[in-house]
Formats: sequence, C-alpha cells, structure tokens
Amino acid sequence: MSLRNGKEFLMIPGPTNVPDEVLRAMHRPAVDIYEGPLLETTDFCIGSLRRLFRTEGKTYIYAANGHGAWDAALCNTLKRGDRILVLESGRFALGWGEAGGIAGLNVEVLPGQWDKGVDPARLEARLKQDTAHEIAAILVVQVDTASGVWNDIAALRKAIDAAGHPALYMVDTIASLGCMPFEMDAWGVDVALTGSQKGLMCPPGLSFVAAGPKADKAHETADLRTNYTDWTFRQGPEHYQKYCGTPPEHLLFAFRRALELLFEEGLEKVWHRHALLAEATRRAVAEWSRDGAIHFSISEPHARSNSVSVVRIDQGDVAALRSFTKEVCGVTIGGTIGELSGKGIRIAHMGHVNAVMLLGTLAAIELGLTKLHIPHGRGGVQAAMDYLAEAV
Amino acid sequence: MSLRNGKEFLMIPGPTNVPDEVLRAMHRPAVDIYEGPLLETTDFCIGSLRRLFRTEGKTYIYAANGHGAWDAALCNTLKRGDRILVLESGRFALGWGEAGGIAGLNVEVLPGQWDKGVDPARLEARLKQDTAHEIAAILVVQVDTASGVWNDIAALRKAIDAAGHPALYMVDTIASLGCMPFEMDAWGVDVALTGSQKGLMCPPGLSFVAAGPKADKAHETADLRTNYTDWTFRQGPEHYQKYCGTPPEHLLFAFRRALELLFEEGLEKVWHRHALLAEATRRAVAEWSRDGAIHFSISEPHARSNSVSVVRIDQGDVAALRSFTKEVCGVTIGGTIGELSGKGIRIAHMGHVNAVMLLGTLAAIELGLTKLHIPHGRGGVQAAMDYLAEAV
Amino acid sequence: MSLRNGKEFLMIPGPTNVPDEVLRAMHRPAVDIYEGPLLETTDFCIGSLRRLFRTEGKTYIYAANGHGAWDAALCNTLKRGDRILVLESGRFALGWGEAGGIAGLNVEVLPGQWDKGVDPARLEARLKQDTAHEIAAILVVQVDTASGVWNDIAALRKAIDAAGHPALYMVDTIASLGCMPFEMDAWGVDVALTGSQKGLMCPPGLSFVAAGPKADKAHETADLRTNYTDWTFRQGPEHYQKYCGTPPEHLLFAFRRALELLFEEGLEKVWHRHALLAEATRRAVAEWSRDGAIHFSISEPHARSNSVSVVRIDQGDVAALRSFTKEVCGVTIGGTIGELSGKGIRIAHMGHVNAVMLLGTLAAIELGLTKLHIPHGRGGVQAAMDYLAEAV
Amino acid sequence: MSLRNGKEFLMIPGPTNVPDEVLRAMHRPAVDIYEGPLLETTDFCIGSLRRLFRTEGKTYIYAANGHGAWDAALCNTLKRGDRILVLESGRFALGWGEAGGIAGLNVEVLPGQWDKGVDPARLEARLKQDTAHEIAAILVVQVDTASGVWNDIAALRKAIDAAGHPALYMVDTIASLGCMPFEMDAWGVDVALTGSQKGLMCPPGLSFVAAGPKADKAHETADLRTNYTDWTFRQGPEHYQKYCGTPPEHLLFAFRRALELLFEEGLEKVWHRHALLAEATRRAVAEWSRDGAIHFSISEPHARSNSVSVVRIDQGDVAALRSFTKEVCGVTIGGTIGELSGKGIRIAHMGHVNAVMLLGTLAAIELGLTKLHIPHGRGGVQAAMDYLAEAV
Repeated sequence: MSLRNGKEFLMIPGPTNVPDEVLRAMHRPAVDIYEGPLLETTDFCIGSLRRLFRTEGKTYIYAANGHGAWDAALCNTLKRGDRILVLESGRFALGWGEAGGIAGLNVEVLPGQWDKGVDPARLEARLKQDTAHEIAAILVVQVDTASGVWNDIAALRKAIDAAGHPALYMVDTIASLGCMPFEMDAWGVDVALTGSQKGLMCPPGLSFVAAGPKADKAHETADLRTNYTDWTFRQGPEHYQKYCGTPPEHLLFAFRRALELLFEEGLEKVWHRHALLAEATRRAVAEWSRDGAIHFSISEPHARSNSVSVVRIDQGDVAALRSFTKEVCGVTIGGTIGELSGKGIRIAHMGHVNAVMLLGTLAAIELGLTKLHIPHGRGGVQAAMDYLAEAV
Repeated sequence: MSLRNGKEFLMIPGPTNVPDEVLRAMHRPAVDIYEGPLLETTDFCIGSLRRLFRTEGKTYIYAANGHGAWDAALCNTLKRGDRILVLESGRFALGWGEAGGIAGLNVEVLPGQWDKGVDPARLEARLKQDTAHEIAAILVVQVDTASGVWNDIAALRKAIDAAGHPALYMVDTIASLGCMPFEMDAWGVDVALTGSQKGLMCPPGLSFVAAGPKADKAHETADLRTNYTDWTFRQGPEHYQKYCGTPPEHLLFAFRRALELLFEEGLEKVWHRHALLAEATRRAVAEWSRDGAIHFSISEPHARSNSVSVVRIDQGDVAALRSFTKEVCGVTIGGTIGELSGKGIRIAHMGHVNAVMLLGTLAAIELGLTKLHIPHGRGGVQAAMDYLAEAV
Repeated sequence: MSLRNGKEFLMIPGPTNVPDEVLRAMHRPAVDIYEGPLLETTDFCIGSLRRLFRTEGKTYIYAANGHGAWDAALCNTLKRGDRILVLESGRFALGWGEAGGIAGLNVEVLPGQWDKGVDPARLEARLKQDTAHEIAAILVVQVDTASGVWNDIAALRKAIDAAGHPALYMVDTIASLGCMPFEMDAWGVDVALTGSQKGLMCPPGLSFVAAGPKADKAHETADLRTNYTDWTFRQGPEHYQKYCGTPPEHLLFAFRRALELLFEEGLEKVWHRHALLAEATRRAVAEWSRDGAIHFSISEPHARSNSVSVVRIDQGDVAALRSFTKEVCGVTIGGTIGELSGKGIRIAHMGHVNAVMLLGTLAAIELGLTKLHIPHGRGGVQAAMDYLAEAV
Repeated sequence: MSLRNGKEFLMIPGPTNVPDEVLRAMHRPAVDIYEGPLLETTDFCIGSLRRLFRTEGKTYIYAANGHGAWDAALCNTLKRGDRILVLESGRFALGWGEAGGIAGLNVEVLPGQWDKGVDPARLEARLKQDTAHEIAAILVVQVDTASGVWNDIAALRKAIDAAGHPALYMVDTIASLGCMPFEMDAWGVDVALTGSQKGLMCPPGLSFVAAGPKADKAHETADLRTNYTDWTFRQGPEHYQKYCGTPPEHLLFAFRRALELLFEEGLEKVWHRHALLAEATRRAVAEWSRDGAIHFSISEPHARSNSVSVVRIDQGDVAALRSFTKEVCGVTIGGTIGELSGKGIRIAHMGHVNAVMLLGTLAAIELGLTKLHIPHGRGGVQAAMDYLAEAV
C-alpha cells in the first residue's frame, strides 16, 4: 500500500531540493544579454561567490556542471605534463584526477581509504619527498559524496606548509559549499570550485571557480587552456565574455534567488543548521547500528560530513529499502556508489532541508528497516529527536 | 536556532498542501470562455464531481468558497421561513445553520457535543416528534474540522428513514470528500457540498454542490434563489451559465489536474492512504496521552476523523508549541478554534500528504513537546512507525 | 498555413492577458489563514481597492466572479420588492437587472440602444416622474463589453441630482476599472463593483464591491442579505470573515501583484495608455470602414469605450476572420454577443496590453480582412501607426 | 508616453522567446539522476537530436552554451597543430576559429565579407591548393547572427568534393537549426552543433553536437580532448556519463518539451513558418529601404537568412530606435554587433514567433522610424501584410 502521494523529497547528495522561490525565479521570459538587468545580476552573482568562497580572489561562473569546473581549474593553471597529486578519500578526487589525465597531466594518487579522511601527515611526508617540486598541484575534495568523508582542508594546508611545498592547493567544494565552513583565503586555498545543485539549492547546470593570486600567476603560463574555460577571455570587458558566450539566464535567475536566500538566513546559520541536522542523522544511525548489520561508512566520527551520511547495510535488501522509502513513503534516499555500490544508503542533509524533512526521512528509513526485517537497533528517530530537543 | 529552511508543509485543516503539478496547471495564460478547450474542461470537471460524490445527480461548480456553497444548497431548495434542523457536533454545522438564518430560514439546532458524533437515536427521536413535517431540511457535516469529529452519514440516514421523515438530507463534505468514503446516492443524501482546498488539493476559491432528484424537486418551489447560486440558470445552454458569469479559469485548470491525480491514484486508495496516516497519527497521540496532559478531543474512537486529529493539551504553552514546529522545524500545524480555542492543536492529514510528511510532522510535534516541557508520554513517533510497519 | 506558434494573445474583453509576474505570484504553496503574511495581504488589497475606486468608502473582496458582485451590491442594500431602474446601453446592465429580479426586486428598464450611451436627459425625465421615490436604486455599467459603449457616469449623476432623486446610484465598472478614470466619491456613486479579470489583469474568480455612506445606511434595513454576501459579517473582527470563509489565497497573491504593477505604472498613466491604444484602434477601424461593410458598433464617437472596440462587419465570414487571426496568426479576438451575435468582432484593448500587441492584433485583423476578401478600406494599421507617432 | 506594459517580446537573435509550456516544464522539483524518469528523458533527447540534425550519427548533450559546443567539436576530432580553415561570412565562424587557436590549432581564415555568403568557388580553389591536405577541418556557420547571412551548406560540400579534399566539414547551426532545412547526412556534414536558446526555444545553457562516422574515426586519434567534452567518456554505460557529471535536469525538462512542440508542429512546417515570416520582414525592410537611409546588411537576396534580418541604418539615432521599440512599445529588437556595431538593427524571427508578434514588431519599428524622423519609405507593414495575405 503506497502512502507516497504528497510532497516528495529528494534526500540524495545532489541534485537537492530546489526551493519554490528558486524555481519561481526561473519561470520568466528570457531577457537581452547585452544590456539591462542581466548585467546587474552577473555582478551580483560574481560578487556573492566571493562571499560564499570567503575570498578576495576572482570568481567565474560556468554554464557547465561540476566536471566542467574540474577542467576549468586544471586547464587554466597547469601545463601539459605537469604532475598533480590527488588525495584519495572516496571517489571524486580520483575522478578529478582522471580528468587531469585526459587533459594531458601526469597524475599521481596519494592512496587513501573510503572510510577516513586524508591524513595530513601522509601528505606532508609525500611532499617532503618531492624535493624537486615536481608536483604542480594538489587536488582534494572537502566532502566526498561517495564515501561521505569530510576532509580537514585547513589541516592539509598546514601539512603543505610544513613541507614547504609550492604546489597549487585546489579544493573541490561541490558537496560542501553552503553546508559548512569553507575559508578559501584564510585556509590558503589557491583554487576552489563548486556546483549549483547541492548546498546552493539550484538546478544543476552551473558551476563556479574561484582563483587566488597564486593561481592567477600560474594562469599566465598555463598551456592547457580551452576557449570555453579560459579565465583571460572571461575577464574581458564584454558581458558575454563572463560566460564565454550566451549567459545561462534562467539558471542565473535561479542562482541569484538562492544566493539571496542563503544570505537572508545567514551563512553561519546555514552551516549550523546543517551541523544539527547531520548530527541528528548520526544519532539515529548510531542507534540503528547497535544490532551489527548497519555501520557508518566513515569510521572516524570527526570525518563524517555534515552534508551526507553514508551508511553501510550488511544484511537485508538495500534496494528494497530505497524503493520502500520512495514508493511507499515519498522520499528518495541515495544509493551508495563506487566501491560501496549496492552496499548501503546515502542520506543527504544538504541544501534546502529542515527539521521536519529530516525527521520524516529518518522515520521513513526506520519504518522501512522494520518492515523489511533489516536487522537494526530501534529508537533511531527517538535519538534524533532527543538530540535536537537539547541542541536547538 | 531555526531549522526551518527547507520545504515547509502546511498540516492545517485547509487550505492544504497543493501538489506542484496542480500549481503548475494554473501557471498559464487565460483562454477564451466561449469556445475552445475550456468547454471540455468544464464537462470533465462536472462529470468528475459525480464520480467524487458518487452520485447520478446534478453537480455545480461555484466560484466561491465553501460558505458560498452553503448558501447555494439552501437557497436553491428552501422557502423563506422553512425550518432547518442543524445537527451539532462542532462548529461548522452551526455556521451553516446561521447562514440559513441570515437567508430567512427558521433554524433549529439539535444540540450535540464537541467530543462526539451526532447521535442517530436523538435525531430519530426529534424527527418523530415533528409529526407535521415542519422540518424541511436536515444539515450535518461529515467531518467537523473544529472538533475533529466524523459523523456516520449512513447511520443518520437510517435514523431519518426510521422516523419516516421527508426532510431534505444535506451534508457538508468540505473536510471529508476525497479523504474518506462518501456515497451520496447509496446513503440517500439529497444535497452534498464541498470545497476545493482540502481533500481536493486545490487552492481555495472553488466550491461544489451536488443535488439529487428530491433536491431538484424542491428547487422548483424554492423562493430564496439568488442569481449567482441559482441552479436553473446554471443549467442553461451557454457555457458561461455553468458559472453564472466568467469561469474561474485558472482554478479550473488546477481542479482538473487535481482530479486527474486523484483518479490516477484511485479514490479507494486515496481513502486508504488517509485511513492509515490518520491511524498512525492516533497511535502517536495515544502515546503522548499517557501522561495525562494530552487528550483526544473526540472521546469516541470511532468518531475520530481520518482527515484531521484534534488534540487537547491541558498543560503547557500551546502557542509556543505551534510556533516551535513552524519557526524551528518548518511545519505549520493548526491551532484549535471555537470553544477549543487556545486549548490544543489540530493535525491535518488530509489531501496531498504522504508518510514522510506525516512522520516528520509527528516528530516535530514530539520534539516540541519535549523541548517545551509539555507533559507527554514518549514514543509517539515510534508507535506511529510500528503501526505503519504492520499496516502498509 | 499556420503562423500561430509563438506567444499568443487574448484580445477579448475578459479574461485578459495575465502578466507573467501575476501568474508567478500564484505559483506558491498555500499559507495559514489565521495568522502570518496573508493578513497583511488582505489589508493591502482592501486598502488598494479604495485607491482604485477612488473612494473613502468600504471595500469588499468576494471569492466570486462579477455576477457574484452584482448580487452582493443588491442584496446588501435593498429590500424585497424594491424598484430598481436599469439603464440599458447594451447587455450587462440588463443582466444585472435580471439578477435583481431573481432576488425579488421589482425591475424597471429605462430603454436604451446598443449604439449609444445612456442619455442623461432621459434619466432625469424618468426620475422626475417618480415623485413617490419608488425607485430605490439606479443601475448602470460604465462600459458594456457587448456593445462597446462608454457611459458618462458623472453626467448621469448630475441628471439624478437635477431630478432631486434619492435613489442609490450603482455602477458596474467590471469592464472599465483600471482602464479609464472612475471617481466613485467625486462622482457621487454609492455602490461600485468590478471583477479581477479585465483591467485588473488577474485570473477570474475575484470580484470587488465598494460602498459609500449612503449604501451603508441602506444596508441597515436591507432584507435580501445572504450570508455569503453580507457586509455586516464581512466587517467582523476575524480575518476569515473578510472573505466569509476561506480566503482565496492564490487569487489574492495574484491580485496583490497586479495591484503593485498598476501602482508602479501609475493609475493615470495606465488610463492614458488605454486611451492611446483605443484611439489607435479606432483610427484603424475608421480606415477599414471606408468601404461600407465595416462599422463602429457605437455611433457616437465620444461613447466608444477605451477598453473594447466593437466592430460590425456586414459582409463576409466573421467566424472565418476570427478563426484566421487565431489559428493562422496567433491572436484571439472576441466575437460579438447578444443582439450582435455573429455580426462582428470585439477588439479588446484592456489590461495588460502594449503597443506591439495592439499593432500586431490590428495587423492580423487587416491581414485577415484581405485574405478573406472582406470588403474594407486599406491602411488601418498605417493610420494607427501614424496616430501613435503623433500621440506618444 | 510609454505603452510598454503588456506582454513583451524578445525579437533578438538569441536567446529567444521561451514558450510558456517550456518554462512550465522547468518548474518542478529535481529528480534522481541514477534511475527513474530522467533516463528516459535522456534517451528521448538524444534520439530527437538525430531527427533535428537529420543524421544517423551520434549526438551529444552538453551542459554548456554554444561556445562550449565549439570546443567539443574541435577537441574531440583534431590534433594539436592541425590546420583548420575558417570560412568567414560574419563574426561567428571567426570566433569559432579563435577558439581553435586557443586550443592549439593552426587557424587559417578564408576571407569573406559581411554582406554575402561564403563563395563555394573560392573554397574549392583554396582546397585545390592544399595538395598536401594539411587542412584538417573546415569550419562554417549556416547562419551568422552578426551579419544575417545564410550560407549554402550543400553547395559548400559540393565545392569540397570538387576539390577532392578529405577535411572534416564542420557546421555551426546555432542560429539556424529548427528554423530552416539542415540535412547533416544528406549534405555530407561531419560535425554539426547547435545551442538551446534560438530555434530550439529553450533557455540558454545547453548545447548539442552531432558527429558522423568520419568524425568518429578522427576522434580515435584526437589529442585535444578534455574530460568534459570527451565523446568516448560520454558514450560510457552510466547515465551520468552522457553528461560527464550531473545532468542539467531542469534544462532537459525544458528541452524535452520544446522538442515535443517542434515535432507536434512538424519540422517542415516550422521551417515554412520561418520562411514566411522572414520574407514578410524583408518585404517591410524593402519598403523602408526606398528612401536610401536603410539597407539590407546582406546584398545578395538569396543569402538573407530566415532566422534574423540585419538592417543597416545610415542616418538617424539607432540607439533611440531600439530604445523606442522597447521602452515605448514593448518589444526588444537586437542591435548590430561587431563591425556593424551601432550601425543598424537585427530583427530576429526565430523560434517561438508567430504572425502577430512579427507584424507587431515591424509596426513598432516603422512607428519608431516615423517618430524619430529616421528617413524611410512608408508602407513596410502594409507590404508585409500584403505578402502574407498571398502566402499563407
């Protein structure tokens, strides 16, 4: 018996729930691209990206998804054959590295595990070995949506500094910006990038890159540029140059509204909301885990991200569980991917998510666990409620 | 600390959550009212109302809210000075009766209580006294959103029959149609009416009346008609006569889409969904009630409606509770009204509501009870989940 | 060959083109009706209606179309058997009168013609005959969309004053408010009413009534009241009383946005825009008329309204012309109704209409006249352009 | 005096008017990207692109604007240092060539003029000189929105064949696909590309590339690939690979609806509609040109495109004219760009445009010419109407 017909939520790690107001902002005729209000919107968005990334650097808007931003970061700053060091902690830094390989870079992976964050000490050790400074760039994700890990970007910066290494420090914040603190300038990040469809609550199709002065310097001699990604062209005087062609107007209208919503709530409050909802989720998972069949994907508590919780389920029909929450209850939760494929679920708590959505989602999961006889400890939702009653 | 920013729900007994598709159906230009697709939409809606009311009778669409339908039912069938018998079980039948009084009818109330349904035996007794058959019409609501009561319309019909009374039997299904069984013809209802904004999942602004043959007969001699409500005019050959003027096009586009959604799900399944979600709510309330400060408004379990649960809260700050669920959690629950004003909450589970919304709402309430130290038994959400795990 | 696929316009005298922003305003979830932002919206709308009607009187919002407002005006102010004098100049004042008849009023028509406005002298003469002051109310429309006439409301007031007659002066501004000057207080109008779907650029489903002090006084003894229309109830302290039941929220969101658009443009500028576009239309019609087969419906130039131009076409296939402009060109123009049915077209230039829409519409009509060999003078669009080149 | 407040049109050569239904298709929640209805939408779009391009080849969807598609075409098929021959006839082929230069290609321009199409004979002559077959690819646009030229793609293919040259033949159809015939396979085009925001009636942000077998072959040895553009990756088995990352869902929903609209009308009928509206525009411009101050940008009549008419205005204030049509009349027309910057206007008649929009636009322009005393022949709109009366 389906109890699905109601407002459905999408609790997957991207794309996320788009606020009604953001959808509404897209529902309008196209406008001129050479003059008029679109120009002001561009200025607003480019400036707001600085506020989001917490940088005085330059910011760029791409009509592209996050993979497009990966290319943009690499092609604008590196030279064919440059070595890049990819810090593994899931799937996405590896994917970024592979993109570099296709572009002609020399890719080295600092091996890591899916169940913990990148170890600063290992990074420092590797960099110290690189006495010739062959490594031109270090690539890491702040949050990996496949593993659910959170990496300590500030600590990794300290490791780089401790090694005295000059490589560009590049951070993918696709699954974290707008969900948790990120301090591009304070943490010494040279290139940061993100996408529209996760913490930023927009439809997918836009991505964003921020570049600090060291990246700007590297750009001067980069030889992998393509026209579409090229920062130099995008700094030109014409409005269309900002987008290297026709601006993706409707997505920009949406992005503008989403930015306004974020700033109205206040970035710090947004982060705090995510922190509380994530911890409530972890309290529930901890209860469910008491029976032995359910586990946190990330073994180190401090490395569990505030945007997505990845949960391994060793017994029971995971596909049936996801189907149950969706078809019977009305909420779509993520399946695990990559090396965890088919072995668990991903509960996203990123972007436009409030307490009632989260508690409903946890309840739908716990209901499904019971219904489908998947071994689990009872009381997950109760624990989440108890936590929030204390924390809010 | 607010955890509100996400999809908000409106769990009040009307207006209810409007499906995205229904909103989208309204978002279009106006169309011609004399020809073209609007005419087919009118036919579809009028025919579909028969399916909803389960009648072979005539159905009418009013650009008006439910109070407008009240007038339409009375003015089309009664004569100035006619006696109407109003069956009290909350607030809304009384309101309907008052409307009759303004129109010039002679209003008699069969007193009832807010905590139980209308007693068929008392109705029968009263009707038997009316040997002169002065009572021209009997007015009752299937569900009263103020008290939360459900009245047994079929049983009341039997009482009328047992008394051998010829009065018109009129039922307000504003808070029940599309949520639970209603069988106009099978139950011998002469006039039924409803509104767009509750079980029918539409914006407010439309109401609907169905009339059986006995009502049609009474219409011939009715003398309270107004042009706007008059059935005779609305049966005229011109399209605009169906609406006595300009059709409320956008609301009709919405209504059509909502009807399609209801029929796609299947009316019986819609009723069953409501039954399960309502019972889950009652399981939660039953747990909360264990501590003595919280009570069902309706004392008789069978008379608790499947569209709204009214809960009395004798200790604690009810206003703060409603504020908490809304401002902190993101869900608006109803306050009690009328004689219960300020003394409890109303949890609507009507219309476009699924399991995840309901469970989230119950969790938000239980969280609020804890946070605000309102005495209550723990485990409400757990009980709701346990019930649903069995029932779905 | 159809050239229809593009933005279609609806150049009929209601419903009219709804601005994108107004549609967008409706595309949002329902909200609570007891508290929160809806209350402020109600205040804004009720106050704004005073600005629109130019009155210090009371204003009421009905979830109903214009016919509902007709009833509201009559039922709130008159007594069963009261005589009303209906000033004929087309179809709609007669319809209003018929509504009064159904409600139990004694209807007298001051006969008029479809090709000219109401003659103040004849009104004065009739009123002077009514020495017993049996006439309780005088009903007139400012613009009749069937005939296209504009009545001089101020001049008719003077006629009433000249006769020293105390009857209530009631004006239907459904097809004129927001299109041309209307000065309720300055012109001594006691009751004015309008609808949402013409000059006010909203979807149909709302109507509005304004009442001056004399109407308020009459209300005290009126005996035709119905609950739904009753002003006394609607002046009650509760928010829902303003609507006698559930507020039609989405239509109110739309109405609010439309009001803002009107005030942003400036009411006087809105009127002036209508005046220029109407005159441009008349210049085109005058050219088309040179060949003898096409005529203005209204013989007196000063009585041709600024919201709709009704054009008689004595030769040729009128249905084919309307079909051509719609199916081939993409613009729907109105057919004539009532006694002119099938004999011409109605070109609306009311509400959300700009120069490019109007010129395109005139061109589509002139193209159709040529294509279908309907006798007409050439150069209509040219004349419209020449006029506007001078006038703007 | 502004007569602007009404439905505004955007008659610029991209982005164009987005149909209401296409906007509505975007107004919905995000959906899962790994399973469910999005996968079917992808299949539909990829297959439909074959119908649009008229090819049996492979088609790709990019979350990018047309400049992104330029890169994709080049990077997937060419090697660093390859020579490309750019056929000048306006601005955009040059821009595409410059993109190739940034990517590391050796760019040669076959000079052309802004007032005529590429000369097949000159192409043939140049190719015959290239006995070593150093030219790896030939780049041309079917329509250049800066100059307004239409190039005869089939004739140019014949020139290539006559020269017996093996270069890849690449055609940019950004400003032509969906507006006029394009036959990728029949005309021997190896790579074709387009964008969403012109003839395809969608918001900007998507672009599309089609590749024939010869391009597939070249792809095997191409060495300019980037991850984001790489066809090999995009042919992978996973759904997300089709987009190299997160699919731009809302734009896809829009694109799907637009495709349906195109196929419902019928591609050939869409082309015919464009042909008639374009010719009507030219008839108007021809009249305006009689006075000597106004000229077609393209001297050869057969090379004037059916999607945009570029008009040189040698006397008078062009900026004031564009401002007049926009601010006073409500229609935005394009300004000229590139070497024609400030010297004229661009009237787009591409995409979602019907007769009434076009005639209104021409009338607004003619009105502006008169108002601003820009020398011109009268009777442009009349000529357009006369033409259409014959042609439809």
